[in-house]
Amino acid sequence: MASTSRALGKLSAPPLGFARARIQSQGASRLLTATSVSRRAIGTRPTIARTRQATNSVLQTRRASDDAAPAVTPKKPKRFRALKWLLWRLPLLSVVGGIVYIGYGIYEDRNPEPQVEPDPSKKTLVVLGTGWGSVSLLKNLDTENYNVIVISPRNYFLFTPLLPSCTTGTIEHRSIMEPVRTILRSRKGAVKYYEAEASSIDPERKVVRVFDNSEVKGAVTETEVPYDMLVIGVGAENATFGIPGVREHTCFLKEIGDAQLIRKKIMDCVETAAFKDQSPEEIDRLLHMVVVGGGPTGVEFAGELQDFFEEDIKKLIPDISDRFRVTLIEALPNVLPSFSKQLIEYTESTFKEEKIDIKTKTMVKRVTDRTVEADITRPDGQKERIVLPYGLLVWATGNAVRPVVKDLMGRIPAQKDSRRGLAVNEYLVVQGTRDIWAVGDCAVAGYAPTAQVASQEGNFLARLFNNMAKTETLEENIRELSGSLNLKPGNAAEISRKIEDYERQLRRIKDIKPFHYSHQGSLAYIGSEKAVADVSWFNGNFATGGSLTYLFWRSAYLSMCFSTRNRLLVINDWLKSKLFGRDVSRE
Amino acid sequence: MASTSRALGKLSAPPLGFARARIQSQGASRLLTATSVSRRAIGTRPTIARTRQATNSVLQTRRASDDAAPAVTPKKPKRFRALKWLLWRLPLLSVVGGIVYIGYGIYEDRNPEPQVEPDPSKKTLVVLGTGWGSVSLLKNLDTENYNVIVISPRNYFLFTPLLPSCTTGTIEHRSIMEPVRTILRSRKGAVKYYEAEASSIDPERKVVRVFDNSEVKGAVTETEVPYDMLVIGVGAENATFGIPGVREHTCFLKEIGDAQLIRKKIMDCVETAAFKDQSPEEIDRLLHMVVVGGGPTGVEFAGELQDFFEEDIKKLIPDISDRFRVTLIEALPNVLPSFSKQLIEYTESTFKEEKIDIKTKTMVKRVTDRTVEADITRPDGQKERIVLPYGLLVWATGNAVRPVVKDLMGRIPAQKDSRRGLAVNEYLVVQGTRDIWAVGDCAVAGYAPTAQVASQEGNFLARLFNNMAKTETLEENIRELSGSLNLKPGNAAEISRKIEDYERQLRRIKDIKPFHYSHQGSLAYIGSEKAVADVSWFNGNFATGGSLTYLFWRSAYLSMCFSTRNRLLVINDWLKSKLFGRDVSRE
Repeated sequence: MASTSRALGKLSAPPLGFARARIQSQGASRLLTATSVSRRAIGTRPTIARTRQATNSVLQTRRASDDAAPAVTPKKPKRFRALKWLLWRLPLLSVVGGIVYIGYGIYEDRNPEPQVEPDPSKKTLVVLGTGWGSVSLLKNLDTENYNVIVISPRNYFLFTPLLPSCTTGTIEHRSIMEPVRTILRSRKGAVKYYEAEASSIDPERKVVRVFDNSEVKGAVTETEVPYDMLVIGVGAENATFGIPGVREHTCFLKEIGDAQLIRKKIMDCVETAAFKDQSPEEIDRLLHMVVVGGGPTGVEFAGELQDFFEEDIKKLIPDISDRFRVTLIEALPNVLPSFSKQLIEYTESTFKEEKIDIKTKTMVKRVTDRTVEADITRPDGQKERIVLPYGLLVWATGNAVRPVVKDLMGRIPAQKDSRRGLAVNEYLVVQGTRDIWAVGDCAVAGYAPTAQVASQEGNFLARLFNNMAKTETLEENIRELSGSLNLKPGNAAEISRKIEDYERQLRRIKDIKPFHYSHQGSLAYIGSEKAVADVSWFNGNFATGGSLTYLFWRSAYLSMCFSTRNRLLVINDWLKSKLFGRDVSRE
Repeated sequence: MASTSRALGKLSAPPLGFARARIQSQGASRLLTATSVSRRAIGTRPTIARTRQATNSVLQTRRASDDAAPAVTPKKPKRFRALKWLLWRLPLLSVVGGIVYIGYGIYEDRNPEPQVEPDPSKKTLVVLGTGWGSVSLLKNLDTENYNVIVISPRNYFLFTPLLPSCTTGTIEHRSIMEPVRTILRSRKGAVKYYEAEASSIDPERKVVRVFDNSEVKGAVTETEVPYDMLVIGVGAENATFGIPGVREHTCFLKEIGDAQLIRKKIMDCVETAAFKDQSPEEIDRLLHMVVVGGGPTGVEFAGELQDFFEEDIKKLIPDISDRFRVTLIEALPNVLPSFSKQLIEYTESTFKEEKIDIKTKTMVKRVTDRTVEADITRPDGQKERIVLPYGLLVWATGNAVRPVVKDLMGRIPAQKDSRRGLAVNEYLVVQGTRDIWAVGDCAVAGYAPTAQVASQEGNFLARLFNNMAKTETLEENIRELSGSLNLKPGNAAEISRKIEDYERQLRRIKDIKPFHYSHQGSLAYIGSEKAVADVSWFNGNFATGGSLTYLFWRSAYLSMCFSTRNRLLVINDWLKSKLFGRDVSRE
């Protein structure tokens, strides 16, 4: 921080930049005396009229006394100088200060300090996964207290809320990825990272079995990692609900690779529709994009898709422009079930304007390579089978338990009734274990499987583990002190006082409350630069939708980005796609 | 253009911004008289010493005459006012003008005007490919003269010289891609584009057979496109020279997908080397990157690789930092054979400093999944077999004829002795045909297979076709006029004069010279912010290497980028990777 304060110190010297601006306002009256210029150079901002008055009076004064004595500077308007000075410098100072602060942050990230090396006497904390839960734990954990090992097949953290924007190129995917290596390198204590997938966990032997699932393989491709404490944050995988054809023919929207595949397929559909001699029915099919799942992901994707078509593809490929259609299928009676009623209605009416067809109370029954079959429940309760030909089908619904979690659940008798993931207690300890915690979508803690929950859970665990480390240090200290008590004559009073002191600290720290989720609100982009937001406000709720909410959506997502780098890159991408349009290349 | 000139008109009003700057330089001497301020406000830039002198003399003059008459403004320094005024406004004007120009260009690209629709009476010109040759033809062709159809499996133009920078993320791949749709939309006459690969050309029936080779397929996946004139610019494919294992185990470096694959594999090798319990030999193998081919592509890739490791990976993953090695294999006696001798030596010594191992006179004989076997010719002429274990092997050498070109060569008797591609005459007409032209790597015109040659060939064809269209119009006009000659009494003289006029124009246009390649020079980046350049200079050559050449390399490549959009995106990427480092995420 030394360099920041030095840099700020420099800024508080008389800033000349603003002083220059003064002359401009008097551009017309160029005949000014020395004194008035000097006053203006100091930086007050008298109105032109007042300056002229002053100038005239100075000229008169000087004319009278010129031969007798040198010019005298009038002392009147000095009172609010400091205030006025500040008033004009503050915005400049804050802008420059902001730039210096951001620059310093980036510099620090690029030039990290040496780290505390692992120490065999410390406990080994193994963290599985690099999603919201695990990364928010790692961001807040005092890593020097443990030998931390992170294991994940994905060597980056993904800011999932902006994933739908990546499918159309509004945002480039690398802008919402933060390398785990950078995250870990900035921690105080060194953290080991293995790019590997956990295949099984043995709570008896306290080891995790991991394997290298990437294309390039070394001599060792499978190994065991022992742990003292284990945090499972591996998330969930896509659920197909056993519906035939879903895994073979649909695109999921969970990982960066999914977004890239969708981006490629959208353009592939468009180019195939523009192929020579394609029949009108076939063009209709190819340009029909179906989204299954009316949650925020599905809704945002449908909105982005419509934007992409309206703003970019239509202009460049006008021949097929009136045939593009988006259909959103949802099994429940309405989309965005977690939002308030008026926002649901607003979303549905906006989608109508955008010509996105919403089919609620519709259950997908079968998917083939060109059609999706679904049952619509009509108002009279009767079911009707519909067959929709599609070009692109995106499956944005459902979470299923990952194999490694399922395997662990089978090994723990207490988990036998758990279905949706690892049941945890109020401290996120996996039920039936002592040293295993679970966060995020793989944990069943009674909350929705959202990024917000996972992030708060990771945060909670970081505080818990930091406390545990402090507790152990204090307890160790107390043990040592009480061991030396009364060995030397006369130290009893002082040592007792110290012990008491430590015990007071201990009581304060040990009193950690169970995990409690605090809902901050829900946000969703719904296309044509409109968004809906349901924000928790004191004890109530604040529901809003429209173009202003879209600005709120943008700033909220920006503020939630992992790093300054991500934030700047996302802003950069927004500007880029506004300026140049989205890229229609099919790489 | 109206908006541009209006915007520029505004700018020529007295620009106050620069006038303000004057006061600052005299910040120390604040007691100045009216006249000197007024002079400075106009914008001259006297030195402080000279100003003080002037000030003093003015003060003395005033003291002498103050009571007798009001202050008189001296009229001296008026002569160069206009010039001085310009001197200060010009840079500002040119910066603002530049921004307005760029902004207008981007605006025009985003809001293209309606195009001239295809007309059955015009000839159909089919262009195969969207590489350097085809795109430079399309960029310069007056498309309203023909019904132009472009066919290519790649719906974007790729700025290949910066491809090596994409392999490490110095530049994001989309920054050097320009969508064909945007290129074609900005032309005056509408151009059809089919995303398809040509499978065969029938010069007898004058049709091209094309098929959709992408993942998403419509009802029609194969069709025929008839042509009156055909330009073949499909390029070449990678040559493996029949060496076993090359196709299976190496990465090529020709298309955007290759660069993405390499980027992924570099990080995969690094992460696998950092896997738990990996042996030192295995780490050495995984971090050994071998590049085959000492041309500019291979050399630039080796340099970028070394940069990536030195500047980014080393910082983030210090455990394995001293084991990274790059080896460059070249069959010829030296790398960069097209460069002058001192630049070759400079490149080799720079590579030595960067610890890139160059193995010249080395022929690859066999590639397995973990080793590459090669024969080194020793100074005594003896051959020695070496076996190099590798983590990543990049094959940056050799061009082979594409199947569609090979097929066409088989159909044209005159091409029976041609091996490396379609032999063309001095007007780039494919030998043995009348309506087929070839450009770029698929044409044998006696030049090296480089982007520069292809681009000039495309340019030449555009001029040729534009001329042909004008010629036809003129001939048509002459035919019409001579048909009406002497039908009405007395029009003979006037019509004869018109005919003569057209014939003069015709002679001038028809006189198009054969294609001649003019070599502009060669450039290559060699790592650690150094480059080498061999630039044609009048009749001689200008060879230079080092850090300044690197700046030249950058500006040359920037200026060669296809569009303003590409240019700005590349600059943006350079800044990004300078500021934040390259991204080490393995997507």
